Amino acid sequence: MTRYTSIEHLKFLLQDVHDFNEVVALPHFSHVKWEEAWMMIESAKQLADRDMAPYFREMDEKPAHYEGNGVVRTHPQLKTIIQQAAENGWIGGAAKFEFGGMQLPMMLFNAAHHIFVAANNGCQGYFSLSAGAAALITSFGSKEQVETFVPKIFAGQWQGTMALTEPQAGSSLTDITTSATSIKDGFYKIKGQKIFISGGQHEACDNFVHLTLARIEGAPPGVKGISLFIVPKFFPEKNGNLTPNDVFCAGDFQKMGQRGYCTTHLVFGDNGNCKGWLVGEPHKGLSCMFQMMNEARIGVGLGAASVAMAAYQASLQYAKERPQGRLASEKDPLKSPTLIINHADVQRMLLTQKAIAEGSISLAMECSKLSDLVQATEGEAKQKHWLLLELLTPIMKTYPSEQGSRSAALAIQTLGGYGYTTDFTVQQHYRDLKIMSLYEGTTGIQSLDLLGRKVVMEKGRALLILSESITETIKQASAFDSLKVYANELSEELIRIDQVLKHLIQFAKQGDIDRYLSDATVFMEQMSYVVIGWQWLKQAVAASQKLRKEDLQSQTRTFYESKIHTMKFFFRYELPHAAACAKVLMSEEFLTNSKDALVFD
Amino acid sequence: MTRYTSIEHLKFLLQDVHDFNEVVALPHFSHVKWEEAWMMIESAKQLADRDMAPYFREMDEKPAHYEGNGVVRTHPQLKTIIQQAAENGWIGGAAKFEFGGMQLPMMLFNAAHHIFVAANNGCQGYFSLSAGAAALITSFGSKEQVETFVPKIFAGQWQGTMALTEPQAGSSLTDITTSATSIKDGFYKIKGQKIFISGGQHEACDNFVHLTLARIEGAPPGVKGISLFIVPKFFPEKNGNLTPNDVFCAGDFQKMGQRGYCTTHLVFGDNGNCKGWLVGEPHKGLSCMFQMMNEARIGVGLGAASVAMAAYQASLQYAKERPQGRLASEKDPLKSPTLIINHADVQRMLLTQKAIAEGSISLAMECSKLSDLVQATEGEAKQKHWLLLELLTPIMKTYPSEQGSRSAALAIQTLGGYGYTTDFTVQQHYRDLKIMSLYEGTTGIQSLDLLGRKVVMEKGRALLILSESITETIKQASAFDSLKVYANELSEELIRIDQVLKHLIQFAKQGDIDRYLSDATVFMEQMSYVVIGWQWLKQAVAASQKLRKEDLQSQTRTFYESKIHTMKFFFRYELPHAAACAKVLMSEEFLTNSKDALVFD
Repeated sequence: MTRYTSIEHLKFLLQDVHDFNEVVALPHFSHVKWEEAWMMIESAKQLADRDMAPYFREMDEKPAHYEGNGVVRTHPQLKTIIQQAAENGWIGGAAKFEFGGMQLPMMLFNAAHHIFVAANNGCQGYFSLSAGAAALITSFGSKEQVETFVPKIFAGQWQGTMALTEPQAGSSLTDITTSATSIKDGFYKIKGQKIFISGGQHEACDNFVHLTLARIEGAPPGVKGISLFIVPKFFPEKNGNLTPNDVFCAGDFQKMGQRGYCTTHLVFGDNGNCKGWLVGEPHKGLSCMFQMMNEARIGVGLGAASVAMAAYQASLQYAKERPQGRLASEKDPLKSPTLIINHADVQRMLLTQKAIAEGSISLAMECSKLSDLVQATEGEAKQKHWLLLELLTPIMKTYPSEQGSRSAALAIQTLGGYGYTTDFTVQQHYRDLKIMSLYEGTTGIQSLDLLGRKVVMEKGRALLILSESITETIKQASAFDSLKVYANELSEELIRIDQVLKHLIQFAKQGDIDRYLSDATVFMEQMSYVVIGWQWLKQAVAASQKLRKEDLQSQTRTFYESKIHTMKFFFRYELPHAAACAKVLMSEEFLTNSKDALVFD
Repeated sequence: MTRYTSIEHLKFLLQDVHDFNEVVALPHFSHVKWEEAWMMIESAKQLADRDMAPYFREMDEKPAHYEGNGVVRTHPQLKTIIQQAAENGWIGGAAKFEFGGMQLPMMLFNAAHHIFVAANNGCQGYFSLSAGAAALITSFGSKEQVETFVPKIFAGQWQGTMALTEPQAGSSLTDITTSATSIKDGFYKIKGQKIFISGGQHEACDNFVHLTLARIEGAPPGVKGISLFIVPKFFPEKNGNLTPNDVFCAGDFQKMGQRGYCTTHLVFGDNGNCKGWLVGEPHKGLSCMFQMMNEARIGVGLGAASVAMAAYQASLQYAKERPQGRLASEKDPLKSPTLIINHADVQRMLLTQKAIAEGSISLAMECSKLSDLVQATEGEAKQKHWLLLELLTPIMKTYPSEQGSRSAALAIQTLGGYGYTTDFTVQQHYRDLKIMSLYEGTTGIQSLDLLGRKVVMEKGRALLILSESITETIKQASAFDSLKVYANELSEELIRIDQVLKHLIQFAKQGDIDRYLSDATVFMEQMSYVVIGWQWLKQAVAASQKLRKEDLQSQTRTFYESKIHTMKFFFRYELPHAAACAKVLMSEEFLTNSKDALVFD
């Protein structure tokens, strides 16, 4: 089997870079010990090796597809996968004890999920989506709702889904038209259509719990009139019987990639008899849904990072085994060809991939830890962690999705023509990855969130907290002579962010909000370079601390040196583009005004 | 039918930017008149509309595939396509009269081929490959070889191919092992295997003329011992009979994209009876092949630009028709959604695509014109055109291939989730495009060619000629007040290229050729920004000249203004990354040394 991730990197992140023990020292997580946690990770790896990775290609070659009559055919292995994930705690494990969970830190939960996505990104979505749906019900649902749905979802018997998108609305949730008419006692008749519903119908689960956004009759217009409903395919009665509900799968979408993960079209209430159960308060649905979306956004970013990691590992293995060509300095055609990993250009492609994938996974661990700290702390500390997580979430979603595609393209390029053929998996990684910049909010939506909401929230306090955190890392790095130059460069990039924001904020102050936000995506790119640079500096600090010990084995020494080398690579090859983004953002010209739509032909 | 190119842009390039009339003023092309040439383009567009574009999706959905027994099933329309292309002169049209061609300028020929690729890139390869193979035979083959093969290829009855790549050698032609043993009179027994042979076997032609690289027994090692052979599937006897030859198709490669265009595995001489016919001198095969490869590299670059153009047009059409969301300044959710083309982020994505696609097509016209000038001039002038073409060829191959993929990703992004589904074509464009950075020499190979050969050839004379040409455009632009600032920026980028080369050349002078070449791909990127910036400034100059006339219709005025707007966009959003590349290249650190291969895990 091709290696698809580096478990050593994961250990390094959990232990040395992001200090897992700091999390489990908190009372909320004190039942978790590092040794057991790591055993869970190793067992997750075995599960992925045995039940997921071997089906990666097959689930692409025989995609999930709609057969008619509401039937979506999925791979026969899917049931085993979901069952195994459930039994091992990878659906409900992060839930609190009171809801039947294991109260695991997200750091641990997401580390395992990283392994699953890297092994087979066409299957992990099913059970991570269930985890997210159950978390939403535990957060906002009634006791009865929790008891009715959550245990079945945790057991992998029922599939949870998110039903937001409608054909006419796309990213614009304001324009949702699915309607809800009160029956009684919190029950509503639902009518409408939802598209792009991942896991919306398949063969591996008995029931489907659609967390559905709809508009109660007479609700205020826009996002302030959206409510959240549980709409199951079979409605569980008090006696335990399941009554068929008027929601059915009318078709699916065939996709360029992630073909094992079905994408369905659901019709609610076609016979006027679709029953939904209100979750939380009327008209407050979107803010509830945002909890799930925020987790899902981190999940998508981590997913993109994980697919990029798998593609990197596949291309690395090839580069270590494939002899071809000679160094330019070797003129003798009779000398044996060298392994392609010895070519500088191949090293550049591999280091770029490594920097993107491992840097992104580090950011995912940063976000997971923040999520744990929000969970396990109170007051001012909690608020600070929450603000920083809010700010990082759109970046976490976007950087791996965008740069991961570039990374997977380099994996193909490393294999040359072979990489483009279906004989190798890198082309599947490339196809699979592209969806990551689209679902759970496109790159454009994330960028508006970053610049339009997160940067300005609480008068810029989230950004200040980020800046302090980065400055702390810079200070630590400056203690090592060998890291000083990089620490200084990151300081300069922080200043540049500040300059850019000072320039942009003028437009907002003048009331020209459209112009303020017009290059939000470029700002996202600039911020991402700085945030991933921070993650790499953090890793270099941790590695440098380890290297101070003189009794390291040569292999261990090389491992830590490789982290420092990759940090240097990121700073030399990637970070310079942050200044280019700043130059774009500081321009006096406004070239994407809606008045300019005429220029297209 | 979805619009797939802008014929107006093509006209602008041919007439106003690259002055087609300058070419047809030369005696060699004086039989061609603009009006007739344009009629040919319009008729090519009709042909593409009728016989190619309608099959674009179908050729992907039902890919060419190997059925066993040497049979490769291709789309039934392919025969019509090749026949129509042949009858309309799009295989042999650029050949000289003496070879039965129409002696058309490459500017015209490639303009038509741009239309064909944009319409259906899964079919154009077949007949453009035939055109290249026939050109090779007319350049280096004997009279008898020309008479035997060329008319059949021009008629579309026989398919020409390039058989270079071998499984063990990949990009390293030095390591080719296919052998040739002399029989008599220039005939040889060929033995070996070739892979990735586009169009190597299919149902639409009667015979296959494989231009094959092999090593004559006793030849010097390396590239100096490679000879070129014609190895047909059926050998034409003097009496006109066709004798089956011992070359057969043993399988194919299924690919992520460009699935209509078959990619085969050929076995030569498995029964010890494969007859090849030497072309040109023994051991001089590679330099002959390079003629075809250079043309093919321009063709691939143009192809990538054309697919990017088709993806741009598809996403543009969607953006003009799809209402979704509101501008940030519009707070009223009851207002109707706006068309997405009015969102700044969508405009940014469209302008990026337009800048990449149209800029690349402009460079293709520049190269095609140079090719015509090389053909039609003599002495010092010819040498200058040739040098500039040599320098531009790897850039022409690479920029559209690499940036085209980014462009097609933005086409998907413009459509949102829909773009990822097989209901729309942009995902096919994205998949198809990725091959362009791989075949005819990967990006790494092109970059080594640029920095290792072209930049240093004749003591840097090619680079000097390019610099003079760009400076000429800068001078023209400076005559327009509105273009001065951009002209100055391009001057600065020229200086930056110079600084980078001064830095890099030190390593070559010290004999460290590996380090000199280590970041050739980054240098390629920097050069590409400058060269495409030049093409955009050239277009802006031509548009500004047109706009001086006061009697233009409003629509025409908008058209020219759109070119200037796109130039500005390229300079504001893309060109700043050239400086970032320079920063990478000027670094004192060397992080991709072969000694560092240990860092990968």
